[in-house]
Amino acid sequence: MRFMSSLERAVQTRGRFPAVIDGETTRTWAEVGERVARLAGGLVAMGVEPGDRVAILAMNSADYLEALYAIARAGAVSVPLNTRWSVEETAAALLDFTPKVLIVDAAFRDQAPELRRRAGIASAIHMGPGPVPAEMEGHEALIAAHAPLPDRSGSGEDLCSLCYTGGTTGRSKGVMLTHANLTFAAVNWIASLHFSDETVFLHSAGFFHLAGSIPLFALTMAGGTHVLLPKFDAEAAMETIQRRRVTYCLFVPTMINTLVNHPRSADYDLSSLRLIEYGASPISLSVLEAAMARLPDCRFIQGYGLTEATALTLSLPWRHHFESDEGPSKRAATGRAAYGIDVRIAPPGGGEELPRGEAGEILLRGPQITPGYWNQSEQTAAAFHDGWLLTGDGGFMDADGFVHITDRVKDMIVSGGENVYSKEVENAIFAHPAVQDCAVIAIPSEEWGEAVHAVVVFRPGRSATFEEIRAHCRARLAGFKCPRSLEVRDALPLSAAGKIVKAELRAPWWADRRRSVG
Amino acid sequence: MRFMSSLERAVQTRGRFPAVIDGETTRTWAEVGERVARLAGGLVAMGVEPGDRVAILAMNSADYLEALYAIARAGAVSVPLNTRWSVEETAAALLDFTPKVLIVDAAFRDQAPELRRRAGIASAIHMGPGPVPAEMEGHEALIAAHAPLPDRSGSGEDLCSLCYTGGTTGRSKGVMLTHANLTFAAVNWIASLHFSDETVFLHSAGFFHLAGSIPLFALTMAGGTHVLLPKFDAEAAMETIQRRRVTYCLFVPTMINTLVNHPRSADYDLSSLRLIEYGASPISLSVLEAAMARLPDCRFIQGYGLTEATALTLSLPWRHHFESDEGPSKRAATGRAAYGIDVRIAPPGGGEELPRGEAGEILLRGPQITPGYWNQSEQTAAAFHDGWLLTGDGGFMDADGFVHITDRVKDMIVSGGENVYSKEVENAIFAHPAVQDCAVIAIPSEEWGEAVHAVVVFRPGRSATFEEIRAHCRARLAGFKCPRSLEVRDALPLSAAGKIVKAELRAPWWADRRRSVG
Repeated sequence: MRFMSSLERAVQTRGRFPAVIDGETTRTWAEVGERVARLAGGLVAMGVEPGDRVAILAMNSADYLEALYAIARAGAVSVPLNTRWSVEETAAALLDFTPKVLIVDAAFRDQAPELRRRAGIASAIHMGPGPVPAEMEGHEALIAAHAPLPDRSGSGEDLCSLCYTGGTTGRSKGVMLTHANLTFAAVNWIASLHFSDETVFLHSAGFFHLAGSIPLFALTMAGGTHVLLPKFDAEAAMETIQRRRVTYCLFVPTMINTLVNHPRSADYDLSSLRLIEYGASPISLSVLEAAMARLPDCRFIQGYGLTEATALTLSLPWRHHFESDEGPSKRAATGRAAYGIDVRIAPPGGGEELPRGEAGEILLRGPQITPGYWNQSEQTAAAFHDGWLLTGDGGFMDADGFVHITDRVKDMIVSGGENVYSKEVENAIFAHPAVQDCAVIAIPSEEWGEAVHAVVVFRPGRSATFEEIRAHCRARLAGFKCPRSLEVRDALPLSAAGKIVKAELRAPWWADRRRSVG
Repeated sequence: MRFMSSLERAVQTRGRFPAVIDGETTRTWAEVGERVARLAGGLVAMGVEPGDRVAILAMNSADYLEALYAIARAGAVSVPLNTRWSVEETAAALLDFTPKVLIVDAAFRDQAPELRRRAGIASAIHMGPGPVPAEMEGHEALIAAHAPLPDRSGSGEDLCSLCYTGGTTGRSKGVMLTHANLTFAAVNWIASLHFSDETVFLHSAGFFHLAGSIPLFALTMAGGTHVLLPKFDAEAAMETIQRRRVTYCLFVPTMINTLVNHPRSADYDLSSLRLIEYGASPISLSVLEAAMARLPDCRFIQGYGLTEATALTLSLPWRHHFESDEGPSKRAATGRAAYGIDVRIAPPGGGEELPRGEAGEILLRGPQITPGYWNQSEQTAAAFHDGWLLTGDGGFMDADGFVHITDRVKDMIVSGGENVYSKEVENAIFAHPAVQDCAVIAIPSEEWGEAVHAVVVFRPGRSATFEEIRAHCRARLAGFKCPRSLEVRDALPLSAAGKIVKAELRAPWWADRRRSVG
């Protein structure tokens, strides 16, 4: 299984058709193929060798898409970085995987000198609009200057990409994804979520996140058309759907709600939409009904996945959103196993399969599962039990094989589709001089699904405002990880063993609703 | 990639829905799962160990389907045998792969004693209707007597199945198919040919052929419903399509023609059909138009594959059967690369890719390609060039990446979807005492696509009738390999190097038509 096979197929079978539409720029698959091969030549000329890591810190763009494939064609490992991270977080990751080259765009050119200095990165590339800084190579100049590089990409178990996620210990972890992981994930996405060469897909997630990159890789395999927005908002999305006749989007339910109920929704022709995949949380019946009325030719599929399983592992087909001859609606479920994926509910931490209906931890196995974390053998060992990946998500499987996610085993918050590990936020808050004790929990949020909430005990005679605590965190963490609310207590509830009882802190927030994570 | 993952998924997510309808017998996926696990227990009790081969010689049935999965669950290698072979041919194959157990049904019970004696097979199972012979175990008795065996199946590069095809040297070759080959082929089929859990598929090809077994494995992965006919004919097919509301068939174009133009076609309700995949040869416009008129809700997709590539490697989507904004009709083509499959046209025998439009041999690479032939390292080496499989099919790729198959590089005839190697037939004819020289070629056939035609030079003063030659062959070869016509000549045309010029023999037969193989 060769990751590059997907792009080669698109070039071979869809050469004269649009590959990517990025603002006013449209490139065909033949153009993308040629540019990728030349850029790969440029990377090799810069000293990139098979197995080297190349980092990308940029907003979504046609150039970004090319860079991902050029890195693979050169036999190197792409590492797309979270654009919402602080410089601290980015620098820590760069030191972890030591890239040979750093690629940035105009949004991150100012961070580049400090990041390169701190991580000792000799070479950098500037892509997209804006002048190329003196100490960098230009993306276009590299393409112009180099002949197409014959393919030297890897295959099978060779490492193809690293995807960094937050870590339970506060240190972010690089999930290793192989050619086999990514190739199977792409064909599985096509099979489960119905991409084709007729799909015109509007990207709404950053390419640093698998919710952005796996549809990118799958749609390339299918030979469809990528539509990019530099910055995603509801009105820009609607304008682009109308103008580019977009057929397929991937949204969180909040975004579907916004699209349907936006005051200017009726001004746009959204009739080209055929399928919306949604994730991160179940969809309410009221939002679904409003969406069906507004978009009568569109269907909705729920997808669930995680970075360690190369995205898609469960999906909820359209017809199971409703009662039918086959049985009741499964809308409250997250989905059932995608193709080739083994799913099991077991006691937390792993073990034998539990009977249907009994809650436990969701375990996964199959060709999409990561071989582990970069440079972190202990964390890797802890993530698996007897060959099964421990997802950290809790739930049960019903009699029809649909998984209902009800809780999270790991102490993690999913806010706006991003994973936030409580420990990482707690570490930052603890560093504030006024803080004696703290606990970070998820509370419900209409907008984000869950929001980061801090419960703090101050040192005797000391205190700080919410704004001070938040600013203190913001200097250390990405914005999405910082608390959105603060609660001050005299003491935290402790178990007999002296452990903080987070369930007690969460209880009043979740009293009238079931915690629905997904 | 675990082959067994597909059945486990079907049991987990479609347990109470019909898995297989075989005449009056219907079994759910839960029942099939339970019976497979118990039968696997029976096989292990009979001494089957991981890696052992288990042969099946039977007509399609629900029991056959179970046996294929039970063998895999026990960690063994299934070898479904061609039901049209002579006892000679079957015995030769059995001696090649030395099975631990032979499974037969009522149609082959009489052959079993001789086959077991000649190949030294200690154990045998009888499945399906009819009394169980004293020296065999019964399929049902094994299921009843044994507890479900915990899964001990292999994965990845472990051998899962052997599929025997005719050989260029006259010795049939066992194509080794791994868990990875079969798993990728199944998900690729779902992605390319649109199987789902709503698919009700009428099997028309024997399970010993990949045109029978790969849809079997793919539909199991999708959790759909298999519909079986013990013996396939047009009227039985139409009756079953109507009765079982079949949605999907795999046919050769001749069969589509029969279905549409059959005198009793109008008596049957075929309105449930949504997709017909066809193969072995392109479809004529007249047949396609008649089929579209008769089946207005049905679409047609062409598929091409070969055993060494685990079936599907090229497909021709429905919309490319017609002229459109995208360009002219591609109906004359065989198709373009399936997902994850690398396709290249190179000089016969392999090498660098030829320019578009230039004819050469079709080469394939990717996760579906066999690691080689069982016990035949020389034939394996000859089948590959620089990591690419040599298909033996000649053709060109057009500017849009569609492959047009125009010739066959190997001296092979494809008759009714079966590969016939000329050499094998010539060897049989040479053994006739009256024959001095002979050549076997393909001639066009309305019914079979191609037919086996023998050109013979008799010894001075000797001769034989067509019937005598055919009967002589029939004693040695499967019926489909025996000549359907005979031409007697004084001498065969020879090249300067003394090689028979088959092109000259073929020319008059193919004068007014392009040889269209696929």
